[in-house]
Amino acid sequence: MTADIPPRGDRRRVRQMAERGQYDADTVHAILDASLIGHVAFVVDGQPFSIPTAIARIDDWLYLHGSRSSRLFKLLADGAPVSVSVCLVDGLVKARSAFHCSMNYRSVVMFGCAEPVPEAERAELLYRFTERLIPLSREHYRAHLAKELKATMLVRLPLDEASAKLRTGGPVDDAEDLELPHWAGVIPLTTVMGAPEASADLAAGIAPPAELAR
Amino acid sequence: MTADIPPRGDRRRVRQMAERGQYDADTVHAILDASLIGHVAFVVDGQPFSIPTAIARIDDWLYLHGSRSSRLFKLLADGAPVSVSVCLVDGLVKARSAFHCSMNYRSVVMFGCAEPVPEAERAELLYRFTERLIPLSREHYRAHLAKELKATMLVRLPLDEASAKLRTGGPVDDAEDLELPHWAGVIPLTTVMGAPEASADLAAGIAPPAELAR
Repeated sequence: MTADIPPRGDRRRVRQMAERGQYDADTVHAILDASLIGHVAFVVDGQPFSIPTAIARIDDWLYLHGSRSSRLFKLLADGAPVSVSVCLVDGLVKARSAFHCSMNYRSVVMFGCAEPVPEAERAELLYRFTERLIPLSREHYRAHLAKELKATMLVRLPLDEASAKLRTGGPVDDAEDLELPHWAGVIPLTTVMGAPEASADLAAGIAPPAELAR
Repeated sequence: MTADIPPRGDRRRVRQMAERGQYDADTVHAILDASLIGHVAFVVDGQPFSIPTAIARIDDWLYLHGSRSSRLFKLLADGAPVSVSVCLVDGLVKARSAFHCSMNYRSVVMFGCAEPVPEAERAELLYRFTERLIPLSREHYRAHLAKELKATMLVRLPLDEASAKLRTGGPVDDAEDLELPHWAGVIPLTTVMGAPEASADLAAGIAPPAELAR
């Protein structure tokens, strides 16, 4: 992908609030890496579907995994055209007018056709997929079983048709509203990781990995 | 909408992990009310698009608003078929095997065709829309201007084709893995509202509304 603004008519190009569009790989990667879920749009008989699913960005690909019996994953493996979006909300933006209220957010919209990950790469990439969601290396798991690898579909979409759209900063009110007696500003939203809660069936004497105990 | 499990072939019916499906209005409403953003899937010339946008559930409708010049909102106002999904992640579920790792989540997937909100109801519903996102009554804003009402498209989708899908609880490992020396449990994720940050151009002496100072 290139950092240039795509030409008019390119589906990557941000159309509404175009000044919020960003097209460089670093920005797109950072937003995808901060996201756990992507919303996949696909079409069956002219009907659009939007389905949330776990995502992991590795190199220049977005990986999705699911059951081999899933309609979505059959479509993905068949290379059907899809679009995937993520959106992280960083704050509520309260203006003097309801019209200028907004949100601060980081989003990515991408288009493409997925491909199944070759058999030889699947075991390794499934570990990396899990590691993207739960920051723990493979030493914290027993090895994959052959039947698990067989039951799991792993597909990937190239990131060459991805764009980011972001809003940051405070409200932008009309100049004539600035002296109104209404509060204006940002209410920040943050996602925090709580203390790890051990499974009820955890064997005695196993502490949570240090990576989770932040 | 009814709380019954839809029949096979009904697009509302949760297909993967069907036991996680829930169909009652209270569950669907609660998840939508906890969500700020919905991902709208629509189709243009056979190509699916997934676009994040602000949502507000009011009564048995999902409201979306945007610019009158937006392609998405033109399609919505024209009654094009869409699907909207939301997904809130409540925790990372770490199992002894990577295969059984999961997430705790609350999601809604819905289908339908939107309709524009009648002119006479728009001003009132735009306030209620804003209030769903920022918990402040209309006394905290100056009145809508006629040109703002004109520039804003407000559409709504009925909730009669919505379903919820949820996962809660700890990891479900294979029985033979329970004694492995790997930690298993849940890492909770929570979104928290920070202290309100006043706009740099806020007139002196205006405190943030008590509703935001929680």
